[in-house]
Amino acid sequence: MTGPGESGAAVNGTGAGKQAGVSRRRLFGLTGAGVAVAGLGAAAGAPATDAPRVRPTAADPAAPVPFRGEHQAGIVTPAQDRTHFVAFDVTTRDRAELRDLLREWTAAAERMTRGEEAEPDGAVGGGAAAPPADTGEALGLPASALTLTIGFGPSLFDDRFGLAGQRPPALIDLPRFPKDNLDPNRTGGDLCVQACANDPQVAVHAIRNLARVGFGRVAVRWSQLGFGRTSSTSTAQATPRNLFGFKDGTNNLKAEDPAGLAEHVWVAESDGPPWMVGGSYLVARRIRMRVETWDRAPLAEQEAIVGRRKGSGAPLGQQDEFDPVDPHVRGAGGVPVIAEDAHVRLASAEALEGARILRRGYNFADGSDGLGHLDAGLFFLCFNRDTRTRFVPMQRALSSKDPMMEYLEHNGSGHFAVPPGVRDGQYWGQGLFG
Amino acid sequence: MTGPGESGAAVNGTGAGKQAGVSRRRLFGLTGAGVAVAGLGAAAGAPATDAPRVRPTAADPAAPVPFRGEHQAGIVTPAQDRTHFVAFDVTTRDRAELRDLLREWTAAAERMTRGEEAEPDGAVGGGAAAPPADTGEALGLPASALTLTIGFGPSLFDDRFGLAGQRPPALIDLPRFPKDNLDPNRTGGDLCVQACANDPQVAVHAIRNLARVGFGRVAVRWSQLGFGRTSSTSTAQATPRNLFGFKDGTNNLKAEDPAGLAEHVWVAESDGPPWMVGGSYLVARRIRMRVETWDRAPLAEQEAIVGRRKGSGAPLGQQDEFDPVDPHVRGAGGVPVIAEDAHVRLASAEALEGARILRRGYNFADGSDGLGHLDAGLFFLCFNRDTRTRFVPMQRALSSKDPMMEYLEHNGSGHFAVPPGVRDGQYWGQGLFG
Repeated sequence: MTGPGESGAAVNGTGAGKQAGVSRRRLFGLTGAGVAVAGLGAAAGAPATDAPRVRPTAADPAAPVPFRGEHQAGIVTPAQDRTHFVAFDVTTRDRAELRDLLREWTAAAERMTRGEEAEPDGAVGGGAAAPPADTGEALGLPASALTLTIGFGPSLFDDRFGLAGQRPPALIDLPRFPKDNLDPNRTGGDLCVQACANDPQVAVHAIRNLARVGFGRVAVRWSQLGFGRTSSTSTAQATPRNLFGFKDGTNNLKAEDPAGLAEHVWVAESDGPPWMVGGSYLVARRIRMRVETWDRAPLAEQEAIVGRRKGSGAPLGQQDEFDPVDPHVRGAGGVPVIAEDAHVRLASAEALEGARILRRGYNFADGSDGLGHLDAGLFFLCFNRDTRTRFVPMQRALSSKDPMMEYLEHNGSGHFAVPPGVRDGQYWGQGLFG
Repeated sequence: MTGPGESGAAVNGTGAGKQAGVSRRRLFGLTGAGVAVAGLGAAAGAPATDAPRVRPTAADPAAPVPFRGEHQAGIVTPAQDRTHFVAFDVTTRDRAELRDLLREWTAAAERMTRGEEAEPDGAVGGGAAAPPADTGEALGLPASALTLTIGFGPSLFDDRFGLAGQRPPALIDLPRFPKDNLDPNRTGGDLCVQACANDPQVAVHAIRNLARVGFGRVAVRWSQLGFGRTSSTSTAQATPRNLFGFKDGTNNLKAEDPAGLAEHVWVAESDGPPWMVGGSYLVARRIRMRVETWDRAPLAEQEAIVGRRKGSGAPLGQQDEFDPVDPHVRGAGGVPVIAEDAHVRLASAEALEGARILRRGYNFADGSDGLGHLDAGLFFLCFNRDTRTRFVPMQRALSSKDPMMEYLEHNGSGHFAVPPGVRDGQYWGQGLFG
């Protein structure tokens, strides 16, 4: 993995390592939309400096996240504040073109995660007669902890590219869950890229430039912007709130729990196939939340459905957010304080034979539904080691028993095999092409 | 205007001034999505403190902006990084109910701009049997420079509320411009509220809670999220980039130019009607940008269309972004370096008999269009003293002469009379009800 201080010199395989050392920030100074993140006036007048090559820290949400490593970035990376997620259809039927695209994407993605342009000096340096090789709207913005994470959908393993034999058994076609109301225009995809960053303009720029690089070979099938993370993936992060107003993901798997990640997130050698070892499976669900209806439910009903206090996030019957959920606490008449069908119990590892997932979702608000309501909700993203034994039983339990379903509509869905991290000299998903 | 250090004690007219002094931040500590703005780890472990009562500064994009004053906030307030804009249909036909709603909205809006809940202790303090009076997803988030700006659409002045005689002559039904392709579901509205903040969760929370307060009296007609400001409204702000990759709004009117604002933004006594003096007119346009087509245009063509260099933002033939646009500079063969139909010339005050507007737009990306492209562009927002003599001639020139139109589609539109600021004891638009 590219570590602190190793800079662009550790990058190879693209031939662009040295040129790549010039960051957008160095070229143009820190300006534009990212400024508010770092502090308005200080940044506007700041001297142009080179972007530091370190993991983003408490003090610098603008710093880059290393692109290469054992696992892809964007899974246990401390959840950034914004996402732009895209699913592509592959429009070429040529295996070599697909492989070339993955090579080109890898080079562009690595550059952009360093806070650089999609190609060296791509926005304005390619000559006046050529279309720019970078679209330019992130010029002057820092890396903003951008991560780009690729996944391969079940449909990629049909007969077009000779990949049918490589399809992982865990990459199932998701079953239809009770009350699913999936929109085909928000579902599926041959490929996905999850862009996460602390500046949405940086995430949108990255997806747009990957789409531009892929012109003629891929087309955008659907995309989703998320504006507020709804999960923490590090113990250093505070638990955020979803649009029901509750803290979400208190008991999420965290980066600081390697044993839990090994058990529930990372594909092991014993799982196979070999090209997926160190990878994970991504499930995306666009969950419309009927917020107007929820907002008319009494506080006690909301808390009973969730199984937690709205203010503190503490499990019912407990004091602190991180107190364990205890199903044995009983109130008046011996009734459990946390109902058996409370969300927090149905989704717990105890109720699911130990199964856990890494949640990494975002809130969304996509205008209105034409009926006087906001089209808002949770863009659920999770990573798990085997979707058959983790996400599916969890969603089956929730979709059939959770009273919260009255306020939810699952209207988009995707399932993707996320290959392991990219080592020096490799490209995204190289193992798939042997 | 509530100034630095005056705190909630300066607030009156709602009866909630004292209780209102408890901020969300004080109750819950600084947590959640806003954390990245202030710095992740530092904030997560920060002691709970009272939100400062000052204008947001370079150092603190989380601070509150005063709600009351001569003009509404959110016009010359340094443009925040995010917006959630909503247009409402009024569903009641009762004038008194409309007035009551404006009173209730004013109290809730003022509280939320202070970083507080929509009602005191509204999220969890109203008793378990009642629906919460605040939806809760902003608990723990700071004020984030939230501004809420109300406007009244032409349709409010029909025969429902006895307001027909109060309609300002400047509040015209906008003409149809060449190439307009307006979607009725993204156009019009009796009322609008522009929420701007440096944290999108804070802006979304504010709009949602105003919609909740208005339940039974208003319904959401359309709403639009914007993720990156495309204009500066203060000389202290760097010029951001739009999704064509160009710096946008270099020559915008700025807060530091009171004479320019008086001439072009604020309604004067001589303009009338009396209830609009100190107000302004807001034009909203949802402008889809065909970014994939633009990205295939050569750099020279892009720069010729805009009339500026893409990298520096300098006018063609000049060196610096803020060098004046000089139409007299000629190149080889005596051809003007900046074409007569360049965007920067068509939109200039020189070409429009001195007319200027205050731009306050945002980039948007709303998923995909179902045809393999991103549904992305510019959510154009501007304020002007008289739309007939400023926005309309500008848009007429651009829509008929600007080669950039090949890459644009105006598919949403709104025009609203924005009343003056709210003085102590008053409510939004009180002058309209005499």
